[in-house]
Amino acid sequence: MPRMFVPGPVDVADEVLQAQAAPMLPHRSKEFEAIYRRTSEKSQELFYTNYRVFLTASSGTGLQEAAIRNFVDKRVLSIVNGAFADRWYEVAVSNGKDAVKLSFEWDTPASPDRIADAVKGDGFEALMLVHNETSTGLQNPVKEIAEAVRAVSPDTLIFVDAVSSLAGAKIEMDAWGLDMVFTSSQKCLALPPGLALGAVSDRAMKKAESVQNRGWYFDLVRMEKHRNKDSSPATPAMSLIYALNFQLDRIFAEGLENRFVRHSAMAKRVQEWAEAHDQSTYAPEGYRSQTVTTIKNDRRISVSDLNNFLKQREMRIANGYGRLKDNTFRIAHMGETQMEDIEELLEAMEEFLKK
Amino acid sequence: MPRMFVPGPVDVADEVLQAQAAPMLPHRSKEFEAIYRRTSEKSQELFYTNYRVFLTASSGTGLQEAAIRNFVDKRVLSIVNGAFADRWYEVAVSNGKDAVKLSFEWDTPASPDRIADAVKGDGFEALMLVHNETSTGLQNPVKEIAEAVRAVSPDTLIFVDAVSSLAGAKIEMDAWGLDMVFTSSQKCLALPPGLALGAVSDRAMKKAESVQNRGWYFDLVRMEKHRNKDSSPATPAMSLIYALNFQLDRIFAEGLENRFVRHSAMAKRVQEWAEAHDQSTYAPEGYRSQTVTTIKNDRRISVSDLNNFLKQREMRIANGYGRLKDNTFRIAHMGETQMEDIEELLEAMEEFLKK
Repeated sequence: MPRMFVPGPVDVADEVLQAQAAPMLPHRSKEFEAIYRRTSEKSQELFYTNYRVFLTASSGTGLQEAAIRNFVDKRVLSIVNGAFADRWYEVAVSNGKDAVKLSFEWDTPASPDRIADAVKGDGFEALMLVHNETSTGLQNPVKEIAEAVRAVSPDTLIFVDAVSSLAGAKIEMDAWGLDMVFTSSQKCLALPPGLALGAVSDRAMKKAESVQNRGWYFDLVRMEKHRNKDSSPATPAMSLIYALNFQLDRIFAEGLENRFVRHSAMAKRVQEWAEAHDQSTYAPEGYRSQTVTTIKNDRRISVSDLNNFLKQREMRIANGYGRLKDNTFRIAHMGETQMEDIEELLEAMEEFLKK
Repeated sequence: MPRMFVPGPVDVADEVLQAQAAPMLPHRSKEFEAIYRRTSEKSQELFYTNYRVFLTASSGTGLQEAAIRNFVDKRVLSIVNGAFADRWYEVAVSNGKDAVKLSFEWDTPASPDRIADAVKGDGFEALMLVHNETSTGLQNPVKEIAEAVRAVSPDTLIFVDAVSSLAGAKIEMDAWGLDMVFTSSQKCLALPPGLALGAVSDRAMKKAESVQNRGWYFDLVRMEKHRNKDSSPATPAMSLIYALNFQLDRIFAEGLENRFVRHSAMAKRVQEWAEAHDQSTYAPEGYRSQTVTTIKNDRRISVSDLNNFLKQREMRIANGYGRLKDNTFRIAHMGETQMEDIEELLEAMEEFLKK
């Protein structure tokens, strides 16, 4: 079986791929509405939330846009220390919002104190923050940031992009006081792409009612009405909902916490392997992703040669992303990937290095 | 095998459902990019166009929003004679555009002359029009409308929602001079929902470059750059792209024109059956949809009882939509539905009526 150690789309279990192939139903039928509702409700557990979870026919970027259009009237603080945070900033600007960028070096976690300072001086309506940067393999201290922001500006809404970490690392939306957290299907949930999941707090929903120009497709106020009544305003991505419904049962059967442990053990193994082979982890100790490790290519190996070598064993890893393309590479350990897969990969890489 | 005579999501052929279940690929891999490009290029034939076709991870409504955000600076004329045209008007308003509604009775085709008059007086940037109203089963004379509009205002862009007709009825985008035509996967293409296809003219793309506040997710200028380079800016709905790629070959093997003939023969059969049973077709002669027939429930049968009866034979039809919910019902004859399916349905309905 081919194995991809890329940070999404990840490999999907055969039985989950098959779950997509169930016959269609009218989306306004009681049968489908029941499946939709059950799937949405089960998804709350992934977010450690009692709030509603929206399921949208879109990629995760769609929910980056939804956060901006629904909950931000004018000004928003954008925390940027990676490529996907930068994309979110662009999303805000391209939707006509006054987004203020607070940047950190890409190999440095966002600082709770500096963010609190920025918010205190200004009283931003909202701040947006990426939990797990798929580009750098850096995990931002979301809990600490939320705490610091709450202390100085309790009304500022906090949005978290957890696209490459939710269901792979623990994010306690309610306990941490987050207002929107979202992910997409093709990362830790190990589903095909095309579906996004977003959990939203009551106070954010309240705020949305007064925000103008929310549009239609990602208008969460409209979605909320349909969520309470039937399913979603537009036709939902039915086969992906089937697959999510099925996959959630598999995830809960393994146990969410067990999944986190599995991922973080693989992360540790990859980091140690890198160090033992004169390569270093891009993100600093204490802020390393549990789901994807970005390795500084200190030895200047050719990633393309490496991937050609790995291909013979039906494996592949990922290039660096964006401006890190040439001087890093990435090994993902999310979704269905097991420690024995990682061992096999590292063994093959070892062989490659010895050549 | 259960059969649904509902206007989407429609039944999907088993082998097409299975095509979704192929293994994932990195979306930035050469393998996937080749599949994506081939699928997009093959799709041009559905639109009778040489222009580009975008494939978005969204429902058709997503492309209603894309048309508005990309190509309309301020003012747009919205032709409304059905529920989905009305939704599109709402989409325009909710995106902050000055949309002017030109309404016709729901059982009356939009009039080329009246539309030309409205455009002439004003010089609208664009007009939006639904080809095939899924609610009323009425087909608007898009070709004649486009001709009339071109004659009085050649610069006005013409957008056509062909969600429930494209690939089921002939729409010649280039020959008719249309600027954007779109559809979604779960109607005549007989795929699961979650994917939309939109063809866009060069002059519309040119205009988009100067339109502000296009957003990110449905920004077609951004999509065009990626279309030329790799695939799409956000992760595409991979399993649905697989299925579309496969289904296009099936559609072309049958022949697009043969498909149109099959659909229109079924439409005629359903209309005649209705008349023979003291029910009438909602849309007037000459403007009746080839893909879905809306029948006036003149005999006041209980659609819910009828569907319960049909359910025993694993068939179902659709209620009326929106304000026509109680006084019409709908029989779809699109996608994979064959004349023998329609015959079996009508036989069962006959039995029900005799009870």
